[in-house]
Amino acid sequence: MEIIVFRYGHRLERDKRTTTHCALVARAFGAKEIIYCGEEDPSVEESVLDINKRWGSDFKISFVKNWKKELFKMKEDSTIVHLTMYGLDFNDFVKKFKAQKENKKRIIVIVGSQKVPSDVYQLADYNVSVTNQPHSEIAALTITLDRLNPKALEQTQQNKQFTNAQIRITPANKGKIITEL
Amino acid sequence: MEIIVFRYGHRLERDKRTTTHCALVARAFGAKEIIYCGEEDPSVEESVLDINKRWGSDFKISFVKNWKKELFKMKEDSTIVHLTMYGLDFNDFVKKFKAQKENKKRIIVIVGSQKVPSDVYQLADYNVSVTNQPHSEIAALTITLDRLNPKALEQTQQNKQFTNAQIRITPANKGKIITEL
Repeated sequence: MEIIVFRYGHRLERDKRTTTHCALVARAFGAKEIIYCGEEDPSVEESVLDINKRWGSDFKISFVKNWKKELFKMKEDSTIVHLTMYGLDFNDFVKKFKAQKENKKRIIVIVGSQKVPSDVYQLADYNVSVTNQPHSEIAALTITLDRLNPKALEQTQQNKQFTNAQIRITPANKGKIITEL
Repeated sequence: MEIIVFRYGHRLERDKRTTTHCALVARAFGAKEIIYCGEEDPSVEESVLDINKRWGSDFKISFVKNWKKELFKMKEDSTIVHLTMYGLDFNDFVKKFKAQKENKKRIIVIVGSQKVPSDVYQLADYNVSVTNQPHSEIAALTITLDRLNPKALEQTQQNKQFTNAQIRITPANKGKIITEL
């Protein structure tokens, strides 16, 4: 199962840090790629590619101008999961999703930074909420990636997907053990 | 088991949004309180209290000037878990933590926004990493709260702790069902 994160509505002024967090969470929790729309932002892209270079992996980031066209195209062979405060109870969604025998091979997880138009709700196969409370799209994305791929955390900690890294951490209870490769 | 989140090193210029996300994640995932140090920021406190007022719960937010004194005082009757990229493998930590019979009744989860001094590493009972990769302290906090209290998500979605709410969402796969109470 391949997971792609779709960040809806990036704003240069306001969202640099949260979009970067979304991208790095996607990378760390085993998504293959993040696609974003809104305002194009080379600085966010560079931050993510710098992390790839230093810490490994071929995680991708790309900007699309026409989000609707892109999402409709992806919908053909992907299941679309849109994270929204108003959506289905998260645990109910996970049960439904796992019971579904005809899941497509790719999942697109949409996270908004600003108000998301009703088209996105219509387009999504699942509109899903982590808690139905206001909190953080970064947190909602994290729980979603963790549950869709329960081995993500373990695989990450084994550094499986972080190919060509220049640097690696050895877990330690005190201090910092960093190896330059 | 009571969980308190400690946000280390808030900066007015840079951290408003991420500290607010940390606070709202703490609230949504069943922590009782967030304490922060660094620069005092009434606007973050107001945002969180506004959410409480509208969405319910008596989640607390408070600023401390002397973080070291505060943490040493809390350490007397709390287990201190510090989230850092360099720490113990997260799944190993969870196993160790659950095997420990003498856990204290309170857990303090420390999340930094900027570089954390070595005193924090020394003070912590556990220095823990979610993935040993750079990503987001909001994501690390989310996973930690979810694993320390595996019922958090379910309880939240049942609205158990959100007392005196003025507004509530009914989960829905399409559209928004909002009830003013």
